Formats: sequence, C-alpha cells, structure tokens
Amino acid sequence: MSTLASTQATPAAGDTPADAALPGRVEFRTEPARYRHWRVAFDGPVATLTMDVDEQGGLVPGYELKLNSYDLGVDIELYDAVQRLRFEHPEVRSVVITSGKEKIFCAGANIRMLAASPHAWKVNFCKFTNETRNGIEDATAHSGQTYLAALNGTASGGGYELALACEHIMLIDDRSSAVSLPELPLLGVLPGTGGLTRVSDKRHVRRDVADYFSTRAEGVAGKKAVAWRLVDEAVPRPTWDQTVAERAAAAAERSSRPSADSDGVELTPLGKSRTEEHIGYRYVSAALDRARGVVEITVLGPDDDAPGDVAAMHAQGADFYMLALTRELDDLILDLRTNEAELGTWVIRSRGDAAKVLAHDALLLDNRDDWLANEIVLYLKRTLKRLDVTSRSLIGLIEPGSCFAGSLLELALATDRSFQLAGVFEDVDPDAAPAAITVGAMNLGPLPMGNGLTRLATRFYGDDEGLAAAEGSAGKELEAEDAERLGLVTFAPDDIDWDQEVRIAVEERTSFSPDALTGLEANYRFAGPETLETKIFARLTAWQNWIFNRPNASGPEGALRRYGTGQRADFDMKRV
Amino acid sequence: MSTLASTQATPAAGDTPADAALPGRVEFRTEPARYRHWRVAFDGPVATLTMDVDEQGGLVPGYELKLNSYDLGVDIELYDAVQRLRFEHPEVRSVVITSGKEKIFCAGANIRMLAASPHAWKVNFCKFTNETRNGIEDATAHSGQTYLAALNGTASGGGYELALACEHIMLIDDRSSAVSLPELPLLGVLPGTGGLTRVSDKRHVRRDVADYFSTRAEGVAGKKAVAWRLVDEAVPRPTWDQTVAERAAAAAERSSRPSADSDGVELTPLGKSRTEEHIGYRYVSAALDRARGVVEITVLGPDDDAPGDVAAMHAQGADFYMLALTRELDDLILDLRTNEAELGTWVIRSRGDAAKVLAHDALLLDNRDDWLANEIVLYLKRTLKRLDVTSRSLIGLIEPGSCFAGSLLELALATDRSFQLAGVFEDVDPDAAPAAITVGAMNLGPLPMGNGLTRLATRFYGDDEGLAAAEGSAGKELEAEDAERLGLVTFAPDDIDWDQEVRIAVEERTSFSPDALTGLEANYRFAGPETLETKIFARLTAWQNWIFNRPNASGPEGALRRYGTGQRADFDMKRV
Repeated sequence: MSTLASTQATPAAGDTPADAALPGRVEFRTEPARYRHWRVAFDGPVATLTMDVDEQGGLVPGYELKLNSYDLGVDIELYDAVQRLRFEHPEVRSVVITSGKEKIFCAGANIRMLAASPHAWKVNFCKFTNETRNGIEDATAHSGQTYLAALNGTASGGGYELALACEHIMLIDDRSSAVSLPELPLLGVLPGTGGLTRVSDKRHVRRDVADYFSTRAEGVAGKKAVAWRLVDEAVPRPTWDQTVAERAAAAAERSSRPSADSDGVELTPLGKSRTEEHIGYRYVSAALDRARGVVEITVLGPDDDAPGDVAAMHAQGADFYMLALTRELDDLILDLRTNEAELGTWVIRSRGDAAKVLAHDALLLDNRDDWLANEIVLYLKRTLKRLDVTSRSLIGLIEPGSCFAGSLLELALATDRSFQLAGVFEDVDPDAAPAAITVGAMNLGPLPMGNGLTRLATRFYGDDEGLAAAEGSAGKELEAEDAERLGLVTFAPDDIDWDQEVRIAVEERTSFSPDALTGLEANYRFAGPETLETKIFARLTAWQNWIFNRPNASGPEGALRRYGTGQRADFDMKRV
Repeated sequence: MSTLASTQATPAAGDTPADAALPGRVEFRTEPARYRHWRVAFDGPVATLTMDVDEQGGLVPGYELKLNSYDLGVDIELYDAVQRLRFEHPEVRSVVITSGKEKIFCAGANIRMLAASPHAWKVNFCKFTNETRNGIEDATAHSGQTYLAALNGTASGGGYELALACEHIMLIDDRSSAVSLPELPLLGVLPGTGGLTRVSDKRHVRRDVADYFSTRAEGVAGKKAVAWRLVDEAVPRPTWDQTVAERAAAAAERSSRPSADSDGVELTPLGKSRTEEHIGYRYVSAALDRARGVVEITVLGPDDDAPGDVAAMHAQGADFYMLALTRELDDLILDLRTNEAELGTWVIRSRGDAAKVLAHDALLLDNRDDWLANEIVLYLKRTLKRLDVTSRSLIGLIEPGSCFAGSLLELALATDRSFQLAGVFEDVDPDAAPAAITVGAMNLGPLPMGNGLTRLATRFYGDDEGLAAAEGSAGKELEAEDAERLGLVTFAPDDIDWDQEVRIAVEERTSFSPDALTGLEANYRFAGPETLETKIFARLTAWQNWIFNRPNASGPEGALRRYGTGQRADFDMKRV
C-alpha cells in the first residue's frame, strides 16, 4: 500500500508531519447512506463499486486523502459494501471496482497518514485491509460474485493491490494510466497489502520481472503491463465502457450464484453498547479488565430452536442466530483489535444449549445450495480467520453450562490454550451437568483456516491417528477427561485446582513480552501448509512489520517520513 | 536460541552489558586441530560430536560461554565438523551429538553476547546457525549420516533447537535434565533457530501443548517430554551409555551410505587471499567496491576436462573443480555476509568453457551412487540455498566468454535480475562468440531450492508452458535473444546500451532502502510452496527479526538486555 498522493501537497523541506492524533475510538459499523468515499450502483446482476474518496474525510486529522488515496475509514466502507453485496444482493453476480476520479484509479494508502501513524496503527491498518481483500477473493471463489478491477486511471501501490485482489484486471490504455508498486523506491517499505505475494503466487509474474516492476516507481502501462501479466487487458478509451460492461456481464453469466429469485437479507444496524469497561451485543459480551489487561468474552448460544427450514431462516434475516452472532463477533474482534491494544489476553467462554447450536449448524450445512446459508457459513469462516490472525493471546474456558459444540467449538479450537472443568463447581451448582464439548459437522470441513486445513486438522497436523480419533468422536458429548484424552482441550483441572490454574495461566500470559507472544502465536497457530493467504500474513507481513519498525523507513530521516518533504531519505546502508 | 548461562554470572542490577566490539573480521575456515569447543571421536560407523565449550573462547570479548552456551565461533566449528564428517568420513553412518559437561547439554546461544550484539549481527548469527542445522537434517536425509541427539543434561533454547535438528532425541532421565524453550518467558524473544517450526511441523507437537511448553521456562523432563513428543525417549542413567550406543549402531545399520570401502576426501586448507578491496581463491574472486557498495564476483569455469571417471575424481579430491569451487563460493558468501554488511549489491559474472562445466556436471550426475559425487552435488545445493537466503541484491551479468551452463547457470538463476549481452562488445573483441547460456541436467532437479522446487520451476511458478519451454531448451547454447524469449534472463541489451543499462541498474539498487530490498527479495525469491525450511527462514525468522528490533526485547529496558541483571523488563504492553 502506498500512494503518490502527497506529491500534490509537498510541504517545505524539513516539514515532517507531526504524529497524527489517533481517533478516540474507531467505529466499524456503517451503512451505504453514511458512505463518504464509495458509491454502489446496480444494473441487474452487475454491481459497480465506485471509489471517490472525499479528500476531507480522513478518519484522523492531519492529512488529506488526495488522488483517491485511502485510510482505514475508506477501507471500512469498502468492507461494509462487500459484505452487503453478499447478503443484501443475491442478484449480484459480478462486481466492478472502478474510480470516480479523472485519470486516477487509486493512489493507495495515504502516505502522510502512514508516516504519522504509530507502528501498531500501521500494522493493524494493513491487517484489516488485507482481510478485506481476502474477502473479495472469497466472494469471487465461493459466493459467485466475481470482482473485476476497471482501472480507469493509474493504480499505484495499494490501488494496484486492490486490483490484484480482483479476478480480472482491465487497465485503460491512454498513454498515461499505469499500474505500479512504488513503495520500495519511494518510501523504503514493501507493498503491504498482499502485493508481492499476489504478483508472484497469483498472477505468476516471473520473479525477476516482478523485482524490476517493484523498483520502477513510474510503473508499467498498456501492452507491456499485459505482457508482464500485471493486468489482463489494456483497453483503449473508445471501447472502455463497452468492454467493462461486457466483461462484467460475461462474469455474471458464468456465476453459479444460486439466488436469482430471492430477496436479500438486510444487514440491519447492529445493536451494541460500548463503554470503557464493557461491550455488549445480543449474543456476545465482553468485560474489559484494564487493570489485568484482559478481556473476558462470553458467547451465548441460541435462545430458540433452529428455524424449521430455509424459508424460516430467510424470514428471520439478520436476526437469525448464526448471522447475528457472526456479525457481533466480527465487530467485537475489530473493535478490540483496533481500539484496545493494551488488552493482550482474551478469555473466551460460552453459555447455552449445545444441541441448539448443533441444530443451527445442521440447518446451514444441510442447505449449502441456499445462497444465504452459504453466505452465513462463509462469513463465519472469515470471522474465525480474523481471530486466527489477531495478535492477542486467546484462552478458552469450558465450564458447566457452556455450549462449545460445532461452530462454537471452533472458538475453543482457535484458542492458544483451553481449560475444561473436570466435573462441576461444587460450591456453585453441584447438580449441574459437567462441562462438555461436542465435535460437529462444522468442525470437519466447512470452516477451514487460512492454511486450507480445518482447525482440527491443523491441531493434529502430522498425527493422523489423533485426527481420526477426534473426528470420530463427532456427535458425542465429551466431558473433560475424554476431551483431554482426545487432545481437544489442553488441560482438565477439577474444581479444586480450576481457579488457581486459570488465574496463573492468565496472569502469566499478561506478564510476557507482547511482541514475543505475537510472534509465538503467529507461528504455532499455523502448522502445516502455507497458502497465498497465510504467506501474506506471515512471509510478507512479518517482513513488512520489521521494515516499518526500522529507522530507514520510520525514523526521522527514513524514507516514509521524508517522502514529500523534498529531502531524500538518509539510509543506514548496512544490510541485515 | 537462548540460554540460562548468564545466570551464573549475574552482574549487579543495572549493569547492562556494554555493546560488545565486533571482531575485526570473522574467519569461517577452521579444522579439527584448531577446535576449542568440539571434540570428534570415531568408533567404526559411529561418530560422536562432543560439545565442550571453552568458556574463555568467545569470538568477541565481553562474555563467557558458560554452561555450553555458544556464539558464532562455536557454531563455525560445528559447521566445519559436519562438513568434514560428510567428506572425510565415508565410513560414518550415524553421528551422536552430546555434551562434555556435567548435567548440561547446551544452554543455547549466549545471552550476554546476544544482548550486546547489534541487530544485524544477531540476525546474521541466527541465519548461519539455521543453515548449519538444516545441513544436519540434509546429512540425515540424503547422505546416510543420521544425527542423534544424546542429551546427557539439560538442553535449553538453542541447545534444544540443536537437538530438534537431529533425527532422534534421547534425554537422560535423572530428575533434573529437561528440554526447554525459555526464550519467550525469560528473554522476550522467540527461539530463533527453527525451534517453533520444528516443534510444530517436524515433531508434530500439538499447538496448545507447544504453546504451553514454550512459555514454561523450566521446561519439561522425563516421561512427560516423551508424551508431549518433545523427545523420543527418556533414558535412565544406568542404561544411558548402552542405549545411546545401541541407537547409534541401529541408525548406522539402516544407513544407505554407499561408501564402506572408500577413503575420504580431505578438505585441505582453502587457499584465499583477503584484503580490504579483494577476496581471491583459485576459481572465485571478488572485488569489493566500497565507494559504490558493490561486490563484483567472478566465477571461473574448470581449467581442465572433467576427470574420465569417478576414480579420477576421487584422486583429485579437494582439487576436483566442482568441490573446490563450491568450497570457495561457500566461504565467500559467509565472509561477505558477515563481514561486509555495507556491500549490498553483488554482481556475478563467470568466465570459462561452458562445455567443461557441463562435462563436470555429467560426471557428477552419472555417478550419484558414488558417495563423493553425491556429497558434492548436495554441497552445491546447500551453497546455492545459502545464496537464496542472503540479504544482498544479486545481479547476474552474462557476457561473451562466460560459462553460465548447468550448475553455474544456477548462479544466474539465483539472481534477482540478469542481463545477457546481445551480440558482442565490438570495441573489445568483435570476433568473440556471443554470450550464451545453457540449461543442463543440473537445472532440472538435483539442486532444489528450500521450497522444494528447482530454480527454474520457481521462476516459472504457475507457468507450466514457460517451464516446459525452458526445460526443453536443455543442451542448446542460447544467445541473448533466445534466452530472453524463453524467460531465462531479464534483459538482453546490446553493446550500445549495455554499459548504461547495467550501470543504472546497479546504481539504482544501491540507492534503495537496504531493509526494503531485504524484504522484497525474501518474498520474490520464494514463489510457490513453503516447506519446513522456508517457513524457518520466512514466518519464523521474519517475526524474530521484528521482535529483535523492538524495544521490548532490545531496548535498554527490554527483556534481552535486562536478563541476568536482577531487574525485570519494563514492557510496553501494547499489542501490535
């Protein structure tokens, strides 16, 4: 991600931007009526997302979003639009992303914003933008909504990276519009939103060509961009509109989206209460314990039985338990990740009726050919992936009355460590049913991690016998001893030891170096194969984070800070 | 890598070690007679490598190597020993690594050394130790020399990581010896020598167990270490010697090393001249241009025809061209990487007779069942992998008189960008044969990269047609136009443009941020699949480098700097 935007507002030499104030609290909930930067238009099965960034609409004071450059606020709208296209528009089968500006598609992430942002902000911003782009690819692959990039002007840095997330890239052939990744030559950083990985592993640009392209600030245009596989076609202006329309229509034609005659489901405003100490939704709540640096999250199971059929589920719309729950989890993860960096440990509990969870799962999985059921499962998959790449320690607590079954068991499987009570809390409710977990169909395939494996398969990577035993337990209520024996939970203390073991585990966790924990978790959470997606979050992102932290980029004389000042960066030339 | 060593020498609170002076120049050439830290003993097909570190033998003043902790100097000896076992001891079929100290196997990398080292030194140290451990695994997998770790005392941090590189880990069961990865809880960094990746992806320790283990400074001992897959067996003291001997004998028995009756090849002292401006060997030379930040490397082809048969090759021993060349390249890469951090761009040329190179290749590949031929190919493979993970920009220049064919073509394929002259230098030698490259058998399989693919397959990742065409050209002398068309070189300028194009490419490269280049190259050099090996150099190492660079580890109040001072680290608790 990068941009040439600030060239338009070159300050005097030496005038490095002061650290921008962070916004009080970032809000991820939005809706089309409130968009400042995007327009959505519909033409039968084709939707068009037009990026038309409001220069004065930055999330934080201190920069102008010139040349369709973006900040987190712009990307929050894009994420919302992509989500709504999936849920509210079953009729949409292809999506064109284009620009509302003249001669510029998108100049990437705003440099002045980046230069002035603290390290953690930059990293978190890149993570969210990456997730949104992965979501665009997921819509193309699994929702029958194919994204096409219609680059009606130059796409540089993050602008080109946004195009790379699309299935088909059209570049206008007008002697001036180009695609480029100018981050390295101009800013001393990498394209941080998947650019390098998608250029090599998705578009299969040869490594030496990719290397050359990524050092050429002015980019590549026209036929050469096609020959180098950087775009799929270069289209002259006279035939531009027609070609874009044809490609979008053809993509819609090929779509398998099984939803032609259905109404969409409106993503109604998400009810939420938010204070310094508490975040509450209908099914999810979080207690923010600032003294301990811990968030205690509780997820409730469904109140009611699963709807009797798909039609009833459609009728419930955004109130359908699994959709409502997923939206709440999604918002909570984003809120905590962005706004509560010092709360480093998340403790996750559940409460409710496991059978009802499994019944909801069954309704969804028995109807994967229903577009809405399909979308809800995909959304849950993406939300769980968001948890996997979240730089917080996750601890699962499985107590009597909990409902870690099927889809909700994935939350426990996503934790770094889990405790299941053996027996009951004698002082609380000696007659309670002991805590149990249940492996269900949702654990066996529909919710893969970024590495392409289920959380169970990742957990038992290289241990086929262990995996088979765990999968073979599906449908059984597993009390602590069995769950521990099967390797589904880490520890199974009894009533006598529970409080102390859990307390020590949490206290210890909060005493460690947060950076080392981030690195540890980023390694252990992803055993086994790497995919385009995990390469972006590991190989690419970890190097970028390192570079972001280096004086050559972010120091007062670094390239990122000096960009647009008229002064060249002053590099320490030592290779590391 | 880490150690508890400095607990023995706890300085007063506040007494953080001063930055250690770097050694004038690190020398990688050594031999058993000069070892200070390792002993090598032979018993028929079993060799024993005993680590017995000389506390006063640190490479740099400022720390004592207590408790078998190590620094780069200790690891240079280990690397030398592993190499000599392969070449000088065809009879050796299993190798036991053990300790010469009481109650301690190895405490890992020395903390005071790490705490006092500049960032680049830490990173480069970890890279070399990683390569040595990968080499141990390569010997086990491909040379029929199976490594066994005989942990006759505690193995912590890098000590346990050394064991993890072995095929079989025995831990003495004596109520005190344990294995541990205490880096995170004690030092605020990761185990940096492959520990996390090998625990999860090689030994298949379950992620939550691995997480718990890696936060438990005191480690795990005895049967629990076996149950958690951290070691293969816990052996009581009374049967220790016998068990180790039995396991080593059994591994030797299973070995396929095809060399019982052959003499070894002595790795005679490597002739080398070294000044501030020049490094010279018999076949490799390097001009160090400090003003430009460039090293100009020239590799010479063989003077003579390939030996007529394997026996003649054995008779040449260390003088055999391909072995001599590989040793020289290996030493040069290590020397430049460690001692010349400011020379960020390596320009690689060759000169010689391509047919002779290909004849040497053929001799090796026609005799892979000969242990020496096998070892030479494996050594070349490892050396080229070293180049792939070298954080320097690599530019290949293919001129008339060059011999980039087969094994030497791999050097050009390893570069980030290559130029092949179209035609000849009219002013120099108008009658010269135009520059040509030749794909050979060495490019088609025997020299895979860390990602498991050949350099050609990586280059054409996702482009099966391009790969087939390139492979199909094998044996043909390809002049610039053909090589460019086949995608085997990046650019093919003619005599008129050559000087300027090359000059601009090199000048531009040396003007970019060295950190951003390191990140760019670490991404583009590894398209496609990730393996245990590439995960170690990417996911693990990149996160570790980031952590090394963070104040929570390396700042004055960071855990790495405060370790052993009696003061707790003072962490910025914000998660990134």
